[in-house]
Amino acid sequence: MMGMHEYIQGLTNLETLNRAPGFFKYQEHTVAAHSFKVAEIAQLLGDIEEERGQSVNWQRLYEKALNHDYTERFIGDIKTPVKYATHELRKQLAGVEATMTQNFIDNEIPEFLQKRYARRLSEGKDDTLEGQILSVSDKIDLLYESFGEIQKGNPQTVYLDIFRESITTIIRFKELNSVQYFLSDILPDLLNEEFTDKQRLVAITQELLKD
Amino acid sequence: MMGMHEYIQGLTNLETLNRAPGFFKYQEHTVAAHSFKVAEIAQLLGDIEEERGQSVNWQRLYEKALNHDYTERFIGDIKTPVKYATHELRKQLAGVEATMTQNFIDNEIPEFLQKRYARRLSEGKDDTLEGQILSVSDKIDLLYESFGEIQKGNPQTVYLDIFRESITTIIRFKELNSVQYFLSDILPDLLNEEFTDKQRLVAITQELLKD
Amino acid sequence: MMGMHEYIQGLTNLETLNRAPGFFKYQEHTVAAHSFKVAEIAQLLGDIEEERGQSVNWQRLYEKALNHDYTERFIGDIKTPVKYATHELRKQLAGVEATMTQNFIDNEIPEFLQKRYARRLSEGKDDTLEGQILSVSDKIDLLYESFGEIQKGNPQTVYLDIFRESITTIIRFKELNSVQYFLSDILPDLLNEEFTDKQRLVAITQELLKD
Amino acid sequence: MMGMHEYIQGLTNLETLNRAPGFFKYQEHTVAAHSFKVAEIAQLLGDIEEERGQSVNWQRLYEKALNHDYTERFIGDIKTPVKYATHELRKQLAGVEATMTQNFIDNEIPEFLQKRYARRLSEGKDDTLEGQILSVSDKIDLLYESFGEIQKGNPQTVYLDIFRESITTIIRFKELNSVQYFLSDILPDLLNEEFTDKQRLVAITQELLKD
Amino acid sequence: MMGMHEYIQGLTNLETLNRAPGFFKYQEHTVAAHSFKVAEIAQLLGDIEEERGQSVNWQRLYEKALNHDYTERFIGDIKTPVKYATHELRKQLAGVEATMTQNFIDNEIPEFLQKRYARRLSEGKDDTLEGQILSVSDKIDLLYESFGEIQKGNPQTVYLDIFRESITTIIRFKELNSVQYFLSDILPDLLNEEFTDKQRLVAITQELLKD
Amino acid sequence: MMGMHEYIQGLTNLETLNRAPGFFKYQEHTVAAHSFKVAEIAQLLGDIEEERGQSVNWQRLYEKALNHDYTERFIGDIKTPVKYATHELRKQLAGVEATMTQNFIDNEIPEFLQKRYARRLSEGKDDTLEGQILSVSDKIDLLYESFGEIQKGNPQTVYLDIFRESITTIIRFKELNSVQYFLSDILPDLLNEEFTDKQRLVAITQELLKD
Repeated sequence: MMGMHEYIQGLTNLETLNRAPGFFKYQEHTVAAHSFKVAEIAQLLGDIEEERGQSVNWQRLYEKALNHDYTERFIGDIKTPVKYATHELRKQLAGVEATMTQNFIDNEIPEFLQKRYARRLSEGKDDTLEGQILSVSDKIDLLYESFGEIQKGNPQTVYLDIFRESITTIIRFKELNSVQYFLSDILPDLLNEEFTDKQRLVAITQELLKD
Repeated sequence: MMGMHEYIQGLTNLETLNRAPGFFKYQEHTVAAHSFKVAEIAQLLGDIEEERGQSVNWQRLYEKALNHDYTERFIGDIKTPVKYATHELRKQLAGVEATMTQNFIDNEIPEFLQKRYARRLSEGKDDTLEGQILSVSDKIDLLYESFGEIQKGNPQTVYLDIFRESITTIIRFKELNSVQYFLSDILPDLLNEEFTDKQRLVAITQELLKD
Repeated sequence: MMGMHEYIQGLTNLETLNRAPGFFKYQEHTVAAHSFKVAEIAQLLGDIEEERGQSVNWQRLYEKALNHDYTERFIGDIKTPVKYATHELRKQLAGVEATMTQNFIDNEIPEFLQKRYARRLSEGKDDTLEGQILSVSDKIDLLYESFGEIQKGNPQTVYLDIFRESITTIIRFKELNSVQYFLSDILPDLLNEEFTDKQRLVAITQELLKD
Repeated sequence: MMGMHEYIQGLTNLETLNRAPGFFKYQEHTVAAHSFKVAEIAQLLGDIEEERGQSVNWQRLYEKALNHDYTERFIGDIKTPVKYATHELRKQLAGVEATMTQNFIDNEIPEFLQKRYARRLSEGKDDTLEGQILSVSDKIDLLYESFGEIQKGNPQTVYLDIFRESITTIIRFKELNSVQYFLSDILPDLLNEEFTDKQRLVAITQELLKD
Repeated sequence: MMGMHEYIQGLTNLETLNRAPGFFKYQEHTVAAHSFKVAEIAQLLGDIEEERGQSVNWQRLYEKALNHDYTERFIGDIKTPVKYATHELRKQLAGVEATMTQNFIDNEIPEFLQKRYARRLSEGKDDTLEGQILSVSDKIDLLYESFGEIQKGNPQTVYLDIFRESITTIIRFKELNSVQYFLSDILPDLLNEEFTDKQRLVAITQELLKD
Repeated sequence: MMGMHEYIQGLTNLETLNRAPGFFKYQEHTVAAHSFKVAEIAQLLGDIEEERGQSVNWQRLYEKALNHDYTERFIGDIKTPVKYATHELRKQLAGVEATMTQNFIDNEIPEFLQKRYARRLSEGKDDTLEGQILSVSDKIDLLYESFGEIQKGNPQTVYLDIFRESITTIIRFKELNSVQYFLSDILPDLLNEEFTDKQRLVAITQELLKD
């Protein structure tokens, strides 16, 4: 067992591991930077929930957001759509990742901390308020990543698809105060920025919000 | 006022802003990735404090660690030793940064959130347990950054200087349970890694720990 | 005092320091390359002045052009529009830079050369013919830098703004023979290049030249 | 004929053209940055000559230094030792470059400026004081480029060879006041820097200076 | 004579040598990667010839495709249109390259292998079936390289010119079964991809195929 | 079914896919460049076998070498040692890759070519002379890749380990004429190059060759 030295040193892997390698043309995003941004966004959504009277478990919220992609160290971003992988193959790959995570906890984490890390490295997107905020925050960051490409003039339509799909997912959590605030107070400012494809993005968004 | 759209979009600045530009040869580190790593390290030190019976305010701890370098967006890493800047000039630059941060909060953050962000964007390294953990976590990440260069064979002595200075700062917090654990259970594993300059680093460390 | 070794070695800082970091998408420009190009452009404008009967002080012209951004070594490109900096803060930053330049001359330049370097590292854009040529050359290079982005299809409107602003500044020096030559014999060839946004750039230029 | 638009736009080629591609490991150098640095160094050597009573033709000095590698635009750095090229082949390549330069002047430079550019784009390293200063400045920059690799710990011996060969060439101009100053007042400061291979570099230098 | 160690080690030069440096904006291509792709494409065209009853000399086909750009090691991609080079100069440069190749074979290749490498490093695009397949494969890869830029939204018209010129050359070999298959079964799928400039590319292609 | 357009376009994935990402510090290697080099090395080993009287099936040899890593497109370099993956997990990942390859052939390759590509995309390292040459060529390229790091002064011992392991594998094929030639005529020239760690590498090699 290496103990927590291995854990700290391994953080550097997440600094060099790109999300969806080769996908973003203007700006690449590492797993470490994504985790930071998701935690910042979750912090903001938590603020709004609390201001609107919800009770937020902050330890749980930060913990979920910060650690939600740590396990990508082990096998990379294998949940990314891989061509020629059937549903069955994808399930096998997820199983492989889960087993490697378990091996890591058993072999590297000192016993008195194992329970904590087992919790942190398991799926965080559960039905708790904090789990839902994580689901939304993860999509808001993806939405901003695709918007970054659109705003800089990247003409590939795949970024519009991701933008659309991100908003669709966010809307599924529209019962949340923070999602309502995002849709009414943040998204309009984003659409107000200067960029070429503005009309199309506004149209897509209005279409989705109409329902 | 742009509102929180500006805040979220501005996170991307921290993804592209390098810490101490031109300093690290083998691996550069962005402010976003550093913030992520400091939050992960603070989480671990918090675990140890709690396991050893201390009461940890987790919301405060995560908040301090995650946001401690956000203001580098405004003027960059101006606290980095700049040649030919006197102590007086450095104080002036810090003053400029503080004023820009205040302008940002007044102009960009909606009023109902201003108090929260004023707290997050002010100096986090206070005398609370969480403030002390932040001071230590910031140095542990710096120590690993310089160790990364040393381990890959970078022969410049400046990384040894940083390694030494990081440990010196960490030792100043040796009353903390988590610092004792770091020195007894994590640092030895680091020094056990394979690298050329091992003897020298071990000697430096023993010298510092002796006192 | 390090003497002139420090000065020569410091030139390498200008090779790695990017102008307006993160601003140009297709091609970045270092301070060293910019200084070279400004000196080449100033040389051409000087040629034209001389051919049209003006007397050019060539030592002064080259000296101004070559050294005009050397002091960016000390604090970077702080005159770049920084968000959230008030006019007052900007003045403070300029003062800091001036003091650091003075410290550098006093501490690093041997006494018998201090007067020469004080002259070279002070503001070169004065009312002499050579000072005016420097002002124009600096803008012509900026104009070509933004045109480089436009020609490669970068859709962000900020490059059009810079193009427009550069021409506006150049026109302010329209009494100069070299500016007249630039507007009548060089700019039309630039607008004759192949690029997507041609009509818009031609229209902007004609609008500005009309007045 | 494109006229001087082509000349200005072509400067950007020198910003992207690397000197000796693939040769420097820690820091690459573009032709534009090299030209800037050579002009800065020539300016310093000119200062010293003038202070010691020599008469310096500053226009000629700056012109030579700034433009000495402009023709690399046409065929690249073909004077770099190419394996398997005999002396005869090298002469042929130099002839090709000279003809392309002549074609460029005839076809692109307006007639009233052709004489000036023919002068600037021809070999500058003649027997005048300014030509000799150019020869020395070119080597001093090469010496600092190789020292940059040595200081950062690059273990390949080829940088020591270049360091040695640069000093040998500089010494050939030891009648110049500025070379005497370089050897007595600048080189010792360089050798005083912190780096691993110090003893070897000092020994090489002393050996060369002894004769 | 270094023998074949030199030959193997020299392959790494082709890994770092970019085709048409500075030309492709979204994706650069090395000579090694191009050689690999041309060999893969030639393999496919050979398949089709054989399936349609032609006799293919596979050793000759692979050998031609794999080695057709090896000599770029010696003087780079000098056949690339260089501005200001007359036809005469270009012929001289080709002569220089041929002599360097001969020097290389004489000096580096062991005698018992010289005949084989003289064959491999000479011009492969002869009138044999395999030489014709090489000519077509080289253009198909160039066509895909330019299509890569077009598809990603690069607006410069030079990629359309290359696309057009590639198809024109391919059509000259329209007697080949494999060219007929390429035009009827592969090119339509390429034009069916999603990209902005689709109509224009389809129009260009139809225009060329009409004749 | 996309047909062979998809196959050709997919070659570009191999141009951007790095071997063992993050492993090589001085020079990265893409799968495309590696495939090219392995085919060149196999060609040389085939030459030697033929010159020494063996009969070489050249079509089979080139085909094996060129295509041996094509399937890395689908799931990347999953055979690379992944931490925390047990032998069982590794077998599962290999199974996933094999199924994706089969899906690709069934769905993308036209029926009349499927048999050819099934052969090319299956494991090429069989017991035929050509399969053995592929095994050796793959290791020779790996040996040169690690030697590239050692020669440039990379101090990490992992490159010595790879060097040692490559030679060990090559020696297992010492019955081959081409392996005997490699050990007697090529490897000594490699060890004769200039580099810091020479004695150690020579010692390692002699140790291995002794047995």
